[in-house]
Amino acid sequence: MQLHRVGELALLRNVRNRFSAASSDRSVLVPIGDDAAVIAPGASRIAVTTDLMAEGVHFNLSYTSPSALGFKLVSVNVSDIMAMGARPRYLFLNLGLKADSDEIFFSSFYDGVQAACELYGVLLTGGDMSGVRNDLFVSATVIGECERFVARRGAQPGDRIYVTGTPGESGCGLALLKQMDSAVHAQIRSAIGVHAGPRMSESIAVGNVDLRWTDAEPLLCRHLMPIARTAEQIAPYASAMLDVSDGLCIDLTRLCDESAVGAVLQLGDLPLSEALCAGAACLGADPFSFAAAGGEDYELLFTASALPDELLAGAAGFPITCIGEITAQERSIVGIDGSVTPLVARGYEHFAQ
Amino acid sequence: MQLHRVGELALLRNVRNRFSAASSDRSVLVPIGDDAAVIAPGASRIAVTTDLMAEGVHFNLSYTSPSALGFKLVSVNVSDIMAMGARPRYLFLNLGLKADSDEIFFSSFYDGVQAACELYGVLLTGGDMSGVRNDLFVSATVIGECERFVARRGAQPGDRIYVTGTPGESGCGLALLKQMDSAVHAQIRSAIGVHAGPRMSESIAVGNVDLRWTDAEPLLCRHLMPIARTAEQIAPYASAMLDVSDGLCIDLTRLCDESAVGAVLQLGDLPLSEALCAGAACLGADPFSFAAAGGEDYELLFTASALPDELLAGAAGFPITCIGEITAQERSIVGIDGSVTPLVARGYEHFAQ
Repeated sequence: MQLHRVGELALLRNVRNRFSAASSDRSVLVPIGDDAAVIAPGASRIAVTTDLMAEGVHFNLSYTSPSALGFKLVSVNVSDIMAMGARPRYLFLNLGLKADSDEIFFSSFYDGVQAACELYGVLLTGGDMSGVRNDLFVSATVIGECERFVARRGAQPGDRIYVTGTPGESGCGLALLKQMDSAVHAQIRSAIGVHAGPRMSESIAVGNVDLRWTDAEPLLCRHLMPIARTAEQIAPYASAMLDVSDGLCIDLTRLCDESAVGAVLQLGDLPLSEALCAGAACLGADPFSFAAAGGEDYELLFTASALPDELLAGAAGFPITCIGEITAQERSIVGIDGSVTPLVARGYEHFAQ
Repeated sequence: MQLHRVGELALLRNVRNRFSAASSDRSVLVPIGDDAAVIAPGASRIAVTTDLMAEGVHFNLSYTSPSALGFKLVSVNVSDIMAMGARPRYLFLNLGLKADSDEIFFSSFYDGVQAACELYGVLLTGGDMSGVRNDLFVSATVIGECERFVARRGAQPGDRIYVTGTPGESGCGLALLKQMDSAVHAQIRSAIGVHAGPRMSESIAVGNVDLRWTDAEPLLCRHLMPIARTAEQIAPYASAMLDVSDGLCIDLTRLCDESAVGAVLQLGDLPLSEALCAGAACLGADPFSFAAAGGEDYELLFTASALPDELLAGAAGFPITCIGEITAQERSIVGIDGSVTPLVARGYEHFAQ
């Protein structure tokens, strides 16, 4: 059934019933359904972030399933809260949907939101929705709780620079998607989402080249429905932290700007996953360029004077790798061959020429 | 200069400099510019609301100036916080702008946001922006502080029903705009905004009828850049409260639903402004239908067992009028002629058929 036949009030009732968990949480005094939610935060400080995603700019519905979209919207906001060393707690959603969208789209989108809320322990506490004339538009606000927090501004010369996971996968996943045809897009749209779709064949066509699904899947998943890293074990050691949303180099530059320091990035120390190497090879591209400048990884980039060995050995549940050092002023990248080039902000910039 | 030539980072620096007030507020530990803002709220409870506005659905740029749009976006969110009896404090913005928008549009939009922030004592503490392919899209989240709050659910049989101001003006303003031609729209776009535009002539053309500007202006202003009512003096007496966003009848029905009560609305007691009567006459419409079912007034609708005489005499700085009474079950409207009809949810519904 199309949304305009269901009507706004029925849709709101649907959302309210689905996310009734917020109503039973003791900290939520007024849940969804009033002019505003009223919350009694469990900490003296709150961290607040908001992010938007626009159709045709941040997502393409020919290969993004509605549940992946809902999941990612929550993840990118949760990631910002994690990057402050805070605990994500409350979610507020804004949806601009086409009136002729199918109710199944709406319900699948919320499947993704709900799966992410359960994963992160976040409560949907409010929001707004409306019809739009053309492109879909979604935005979210996540509120977290913290006592101590980690900003971008605390890095000191001599601190080491660390990154979680294997950055570059999301950027490589997007580059692969851009080389695929609409039949492959449709397969991916049904394979990557909250509900398991039909199993993909052994390999998928990326232009004229075949890529094994076992290599493609992690790259596509990282782009289409990334999971935010929890900073709980990192935060106590971090002097500065942010999440990699626009690309490692541009985000490292931001951390340096805010901390008024420099950085030497060891390109050869960037952790590359097998999947990234296979994906980049398939595109005839350098995997390091994805790792250094690809956007939307939502990995944590942080600095610390030192990190316990167990964290570097995987105790956080994900890889953590030292990729350079903070300096007083110098900003450079040491290449694989030992060559030194300036560290400049390279990454995705909106409204860029 | 077009936004894509200015670039996202330059735009963000512009916003950060303009709203540096948040940086010097003691409760804002991390202002704009990090992954998330960190705030130490001054009360043990926070009220949070979020609202979106989409081009072609909520606003029309042929008669809405960018500064009025920015002002209204803040007002509609602040109004929700006021309706909880909370103090609005922190604002977070999401902007989806066309890459070929002019920088002047961007800067005028922020003039409106800034004027509203100063009026309400709200700090811009974070946000996100992006390019969009087609229609503009803006959303905002406002966080307020409160100890006591007023929800929709506290009305008791016997309580009186009150409304602030003179509802219906916004709906009438919108109906007038729909009857005007593009030349008049352009005049209004430059006349209604944060910066005083050229003085309008004595009257404006609404289709084939002339309407005095002194009557048109309050109606158009209420629609294009409404001012949220402060609930500070009302909240201590209110048993239930909401703001009239979708129309008095539909919003009164919501209050009744949440409180599990009925209501008798005295149509003849609805306060009509001179401007509304003149605007409705110009349209050949019944002013009471605007007052009872027009949307986007952002007046406060609340119930109380009684209200001090000084508040009814204007001590809050705006009119407050008793327009009916809460009942156990009965839901009806008493017309001007004494006729009784059922009170049903009539107003603006998104995705409606």
